[in-house]
Amino acid sequence: MANIVILGAGVMGSALSVPAAAGNSVTLVGSPLDDAIISEVRETGRHPGLNVDLPQSIQVSTASEQNTAAFENADVIVIGVSSPGVDWALVEIARYRAKPDVLALVTKGLVSGAGAAPQTYAQYIDPQLTSTAGRIVGIGGPCIARELALGIPTRVSFAALQLSAANDLRDLLQTEYYRVTTSTDITALEACAALKNFMCIGVSAMYTAYATEEGHAKNPLAALFNQAVLEIDLLSRWIVSGVAKPDVDDSDEFSQSNRTLSAFDLPGMGDLHVTVGGGRNSRLGKYLGSGRRLQQVQRNEMHGVTVEGVDTGRQLSAGFQAACENGELDAHVLPLTAAILACIDQDLPFKFDFSSLPG
Amino acid sequence: MANIVILGAGVMGSALSVPAAAGNSVTLVGSPLDDAIISEVRETGRHPGLNVDLPQSIQVSTASEQNTAAFENADVIVIGVSSPGVDWALVEIARYRAKPDVLALVTKGLVSGAGAAPQTYAQYIDPQLTSTAGRIVGIGGPCIARELALGIPTRVSFAALQLSAANDLRDLLQTEYYRVTTSTDITALEACAALKNFMCIGVSAMYTAYATEEGHAKNPLAALFNQAVLEIDLLSRWIVSGVAKPDVDDSDEFSQSNRTLSAFDLPGMGDLHVTVGGGRNSRLGKYLGSGRRLQQVQRNEMHGVTVEGVDTGRQLSAGFQAACENGELDAHVLPLTAAILACIDQDLPFKFDFSSLPG
Repeated sequence: MANIVILGAGVMGSALSVPAAAGNSVTLVGSPLDDAIISEVRETGRHPGLNVDLPQSIQVSTASEQNTAAFENADVIVIGVSSPGVDWALVEIARYRAKPDVLALVTKGLVSGAGAAPQTYAQYIDPQLTSTAGRIVGIGGPCIARELALGIPTRVSFAALQLSAANDLRDLLQTEYYRVTTSTDITALEACAALKNFMCIGVSAMYTAYATEEGHAKNPLAALFNQAVLEIDLLSRWIVSGVAKPDVDDSDEFSQSNRTLSAFDLPGMGDLHVTVGGGRNSRLGKYLGSGRRLQQVQRNEMHGVTVEGVDTGRQLSAGFQAACENGELDAHVLPLTAAILACIDQDLPFKFDFSSLPG
Repeated sequence: MANIVILGAGVMGSALSVPAAAGNSVTLVGSPLDDAIISEVRETGRHPGLNVDLPQSIQVSTASEQNTAAFENADVIVIGVSSPGVDWALVEIARYRAKPDVLALVTKGLVSGAGAAPQTYAQYIDPQLTSTAGRIVGIGGPCIARELALGIPTRVSFAALQLSAANDLRDLLQTEYYRVTTSTDITALEACAALKNFMCIGVSAMYTAYATEEGHAKNPLAALFNQAVLEIDLLSRWIVSGVAKPDVDDSDEFSQSNRTLSAFDLPGMGDLHVTVGGGRNSRLGKYLGSGRRLQQVQRNEMHGVTVEGVDTGRQLSAGFQAACENGELDAHVLPLTAAILACIDQDLPFKFDFSSLPG
């Protein structure tokens, strides 16, 4: 039993309120873009994006309402916005001087390191601001929001530099259908969670690039799914290798030893599977696979739609190019990354040459 | 340029003749069950199962025709039958005293070790019979036969105890669309290739076990896809651990050091992706997920249909139970294996309890 504040009333933050409310007191605070959602939840009890009734026990609030008591009493704060909302969430936490025991991150994304490896959000957040050094928990793994809100089973990963933080959050949120595994692998988890959106664009291009009488060809899709996981592993290890060991006083089981496992587990392989199955990154990929270009699609069919994988690619690009030039990364074993970046950086048609795969 | 004999004119053996014929002399020999297929290919040039024209340069033959010259001149023999045909293929090779430089195995399956870990086919084949000790090549990775025959790209793995054997076969078969990576990981490759059919049954049950208004739920499918790969890794390592180091005289780059990689690469993860996407194992899984039992389905909708994953489960079962009892395997981390075996061994309804996933 804890007081949990979820920041962001979009589909993912709101869906998390369902398992959270099973044993806790939950306040769902909309971002400045969520006022209409909060109104509708107040009037009908139903979340318009999820098309699901939220638990009656939860409190809902708009961004502009005074949420002093909720923030002051929060044991856990969950940042559940999409990437452009992270800075708003951090300002709110600072403004109310919230000191949660755990700060959880559902938002997926990277922050450009210019010529160096990008940062994950947990690295980007100043731990002094939130007083949660080592107790920031990354959340990754397959989780379509509406399915979570409906109580359909899935399994996800929680990771924190202090394993106890991940375990504490698991104990608060785990239900019969929301199954949680924990680790100290937070940087790799966050990197994988962001990279899977990016890779999904190239994998999903295979839905349209090779048609058969039976529909889409499945061999190229499976081959690039496999390649995407291998490249997520390489890129996430590169991102992890750039992390200075943080200065944490009260570390309990502090470790990054299992850092390479995330790509081949729920945050990488598992989450890529569900992401390729549907959603905005996959939709963009299908357009690119049919020969369209990114800027055409963004001006037309997907006008105004945030595609997280494109943002991740933009944050990744300069560091990736520099790392390939200085030998930190081997471009030869990362052909899918290069093919997707060519669409994002140069608006080229998506082209994956299977003979570019290393022998 | 080599003389290649492919044994088995089903869809997979026949599809391989397409890249094989690009630079080699190919003879496709039907099994005793393939006479009608061979007749139709002779008359029309078209393979009835693939619904694709085969290359005009290939020779085709029935099992009962005299194929002495083809076998005597064979540099490469490919066993392309389904598992019940392996013994026929081995008898043919022995009967013609064929001494190919490479014996390749496309067939996926395991051979029961009774109370011990099952064997893979490469272990089961007496190397003295074929004079190819160390030069048996396992083939794994995503490859729907019809797509291969259409020249749609994919990527597969070849493995042999002697890396040169895998590399030689790659040099003969690789084309622009049939991309090959090689390793010495043959036992793990064959184990993964068989286990993915078995695991596919449980993963595919998720297509029907949780319905939403939008169709099937995707979170449980992704969670069990992820779990299946983890369990393929554990089981394939168990199978590899039972392998005595074979007695090979002329080993060049002999190694089993990279044995754990197959589960998380083309023979496991990649091939499972394509298998869950369609085919007989997936079809059975969908029936089980909807509440039907194996024996019901085998008496009705899938009467007479060979489901390789069920055969693999039967070969696996006794050894798995014994290994869990004697501590070689930890049943706690293999809940999906246990759930699928309960359907096969006891005809129980398929039931996967997500709360059985290890923490």
